[in-house]
Amino acid sequence: MQIAILLFDRFTALDAVGPYETLCRLPGAETVFVAETPGPVPNDSGSLSLVATKALTDVPAPDIVVVPGGPGQSEQMENPVILDWLRATDATSTWTTSVCTGSLLLGAAGLLRGRRATSHWLALELLTGYGAEPTGERVVTDGKYVTAAGVSSGIDMGLTLLGRIGGDRLAQSVQLLTEYDPQPPYDAGSPEKAPADIVQEWRDRSRFAAQ
Amino acid sequence: MQIAILLFDRFTALDAVGPYETLCRLPGAETVFVAETPGPVPNDSGSLSLVATKALTDVPAPDIVVVPGGPGQSEQMENPVILDWLRATDATSTWTTSVCTGSLLLGAAGLLRGRRATSHWLALELLTGYGAEPTGERVVTDGKYVTAAGVSSGIDMGLTLLGRIGGDRLAQSVQLLTEYDPQPPYDAGSPEKAPADIVQEWRDRSRFAAQ
Repeated sequence: MQIAILLFDRFTALDAVGPYETLCRLPGAETVFVAETPGPVPNDSGSLSLVATKALTDVPAPDIVVVPGGPGQSEQMENPVILDWLRATDATSTWTTSVCTGSLLLGAAGLLRGRRATSHWLALELLTGYGAEPTGERVVTDGKYVTAAGVSSGIDMGLTLLGRIGGDRLAQSVQLLTEYDPQPPYDAGSPEKAPADIVQEWRDRSRFAAQ
Repeated sequence: MQIAILLFDRFTALDAVGPYETLCRLPGAETVFVAETPGPVPNDSGSLSLVATKALTDVPAPDIVVVPGGPGQSEQMENPVILDWLRATDATSTWTTSVCTGSLLLGAAGLLRGRRATSHWLALELLTGYGAEPTGERVVTDGKYVTAAGVSSGIDMGLTLLGRIGGDRLAQSVQLLTEYDPQPPYDAGSPEKAPADIVQEWRDRSRFAAQ
């Protein structure tokens, strides 16, 4: 089984590393980071680069595709190289997945039409523009399409997928080994739970805000 | 403020990226990945490299030091270059921190004597060998030393530290922006919660198991 994680300039690191750290523990799986051009790919803040070891053309038929999000997603929405690769790999993938605004790229590739899907809370409603039905769930599975909400939700998605592929025991083992027993010091992880003024501040500052 | 995240061969990626993704959002902070030699540093599975942009000697006095763990920690326990850097930076740091078995490196550098600390659950008791008092908490703060439990706990540590440094509102904003509202599909994230036979299996297979 081959798992391909897409990288592009200004992706968000945890979007990619969360599902990676869980899915790469699937016995026998080969996990590969791919980009238009192999080499270091800088993240959204520019202070961290992850290395893509393969070009998209080197990985034509992965079993699982993982698409992270991040500010750089905007610049890829009309990039035919990435959109064509998403469509081509989706034709044979077992699972096509995204974290955060990665779902907008799946949408732009035409893969979410008529599907329930999610995204970062600030981008959720944009899914309708691609024919998808946005839902507020943290991990949404519709057929072979698994989309996760913002950034950290990729960990929950990875464990969900591990359970589907390898069974509960494998997923529980990986949860235990990564000691994923979350105890956030605050309860502000969703727009429903965070203080309303903070939610409003970030809605106003969002790159998706109406101009 | 400068935040230095240490990389070494066969570190665990999420150990580093969890605290990175939260702490790098501290306004005005410069976050830098450091290693003995700059360049790509491969993780524990070999399928992901993060790029260290600076050598240890280039970053002599960061305000915050973050030490991840991972299988490769074992090979660094007597590496004078890393241990000397940990001791030297600790002399002027505001916060000296670790995730997972990174605390064993802090211990080996002599920085945890008489301190309460934590580590990956499979390594927790080894802390006593370095004069530290192991605790089962997920994030342990003792003076300027903040240690986190296994792998994913670095996210909780990062938010805790953000709150201490930048206030509750900043930490809540970062929790909201990273949508850290965990909903693990299983409840197996600690040895107390996971099925007993899975816990025993991994105790038996651990690199820390008595031979």
